[in-house]
Amino acid sequence: MRTQLRLHATRSCAPRPWCISRPQKPAATLPRLRASLQATASLSASPNMSSPSKPLVVVGSVNADLVLPIERLPKPGETLAAASIETVPGGKGANQAAAAARAGYPTFFVGQFGKDDPNATLLRGALNGCGVDLTHAQDVAGPCGTALILLQSGGENSIIIVGGANQASWSLSEPVKQLLATAGAVLLQREIPEQVNIEVARLAHTAGVPVFLDAGGVEGPISPELLSYLAVLSPNETELARLTGMPTDSEDQVLAAAGKLLDAGVKAVLVKLGAEGSLLLPGRGEAPVRQRAFKAPEVVDTTGAGDCFTACYAVALLQGCPPAAALRFASAAACLCVQRRGAMPSLPAREEVELLLGAEKEE
Amino acid sequence: MRTQLRLHATRSCAPRPWCISRPQKPAATLPRLRASLQATASLSASPNMSSPSKPLVVVGSVNADLVLPIERLPKPGETLAAASIETVPGGKGANQAAAAARAGYPTFFVGQFGKDDPNATLLRGALNGCGVDLTHAQDVAGPCGTALILLQSGGENSIIIVGGANQASWSLSEPVKQLLATAGAVLLQREIPEQVNIEVARLAHTAGVPVFLDAGGVEGPISPELLSYLAVLSPNETELARLTGMPTDSEDQVLAAAGKLLDAGVKAVLVKLGAEGSLLLPGRGEAPVRQRAFKAPEVVDTTGAGDCFTACYAVALLQGCPPAAALRFASAAACLCVQRRGAMPSLPAREEVELLLGAEKEE
Repeated sequence: MRTQLRLHATRSCAPRPWCISRPQKPAATLPRLRASLQATASLSASPNMSSPSKPLVVVGSVNADLVLPIERLPKPGETLAAASIETVPGGKGANQAAAAARAGYPTFFVGQFGKDDPNATLLRGALNGCGVDLTHAQDVAGPCGTALILLQSGGENSIIIVGGANQASWSLSEPVKQLLATAGAVLLQREIPEQVNIEVARLAHTAGVPVFLDAGGVEGPISPELLSYLAVLSPNETELARLTGMPTDSEDQVLAAAGKLLDAGVKAVLVKLGAEGSLLLPGRGEAPVRQRAFKAPEVVDTTGAGDCFTACYAVALLQGCPPAAALRFASAAACLCVQRRGAMPSLPAREEVELLLGAEKEE
Repeated sequence: MRTQLRLHATRSCAPRPWCISRPQKPAATLPRLRASLQATASLSASPNMSSPSKPLVVVGSVNADLVLPIERLPKPGETLAAASIETVPGGKGANQAAAAARAGYPTFFVGQFGKDDPNATLLRGALNGCGVDLTHAQDVAGPCGTALILLQSGGENSIIIVGGANQASWSLSEPVKQLLATAGAVLLQREIPEQVNIEVARLAHTAGVPVFLDAGGVEGPISPELLSYLAVLSPNETELARLTGMPTDSEDQVLAAAGKLLDAGVKAVLVKLGAEGSLLLPGRGEAPVRQRAFKAPEVVDTTGAGDCFTACYAVALLQGCPPAAALRFASAAACLCVQRRGAMPSLPAREEVELLLGAEKEE
């Protein structure tokens, strides 16, 4: 799983300096690059993907993450003390929207806040602060989605998730439907009802808008209809194993499992491998693209790093980068994300990502 | 523990119709009433206690109670779902202030809210809604006090408490010191630093203002200095056993344990016995006063009932009622409280308590 493969951008990406890395081993990499570019032709040739004025629309969850450091879990009937509680904005949808907006791309978040929950103000404020457009977010009765994170001193975490507004009834308004049909791309996750994801993906797909699905969230199979609408499905190793029922312990196993998802109708599969980097299968019978992880001087907190990676990959493609350069951009962003605490607060600004990419080129 | 003892108010309480109950067994009860009145002379004779214009000042905790119904507790490393989360205003100080204000008495709450916590708005709103005066409440950095209540489907609860603003550094401002010195009475609990309770009690006691301490909150011994300032210490059975190291399984045992607290310097001990009612030891060598619990048609949730009882007892004394009538008033209020869900939302309005007391008299 440690194969390194450097790919280089073409002129199509010239206006973005971080897309261009120093040519290295050109004989070996150029044929692979060509293959990967051809494989993603359906994406990069789409007029929606090349126009930066067409926004990214993230439809998904937003959570208040309540983080409690505790000595140990309580027993039934027991009262324990925790030294602190921190309320951190989170939820995979909100994290991904925030990551895309921080990466400098115009981004709408379509999600549901609990109107009776004082945390809604905090969550809206955090998303606004990252530059996310909330025009099409909704308020529904009841609490916001909430994740209670019990950080045990032994290093284990236990999480209690409340779906709240994320799992309440959704209805897509006419303006939201119009937004989806005219978006640059649509990004989904699995923390809202599957039926909403299907409806959103159908609308976008019908309008020729590429749909990305991050496989994080609920476990269980993804509906065949949803799979058929996807331009990119992005699981991590564990989610890939769960979705396919196949082992994912070696690169060959990951490739075989990802291939099974291509067989199921997905156009491309992007596997997140944590410290091992990432692996893109651009299409059936096409050569995989491998991206090593950027080495973080210190890993402080990996929360939100996968969300950051998926969103930044989508952003880079929307900005006209070929897949290999988009993978590099996403990897650099994720590397910065793991060096800071929290999910949303740890997302890097575009300038930081570009600085890191520039520094890597100088090496 | 089922002895019933009906005591009746005297003319001193005449303006409050609920203070007067139909005389019953006068021969047996009158001598006890006289004894109890003499025993509380230091309270009822105090000019502070008889003037309704002098407010009740509650110094103590305010919490956001986060209530999560779950199937079972999570294991280390496990993620579970909860169907809902409810944020309910709580904290023993806030509950008692709200109970007193709902009972129609002018009440100040002196407590600390976390200024970075969106729940502060909810908590302030709830207290204001009950009629509590928050002029002297403070905002401090960090989160509000928080109690995470994990309601398990088997009926067991586990609680994780975060002190937050309640346990942050306190400083009593000059206006607060003046308020304490001119109050009708001061009501304390054990969810803020003991040193703050001592300072507050010393200030009030020095000014001749009676101090009530509800023993609920942290476990562990109460400082002898604090005990020496108390007009009334009110533990429940469990707290009484813990404070004295004595059994409290029978009425005789409760009387013996409460006697030990009188020996420690407390002027009167009011023991809350749940469904068994309550027992007042008005002073050393004086006859105990027994009050049965009012029978609730259905017990829905006992949260906050003890807080309601202590606060309403203080209110009734402040309004000039003799202890026995004050116990009846407090018992009626607690009976109404257990018939509704939540702590603060379940506190009865004065009119409801008077209605119940009137209905009991008609029986």
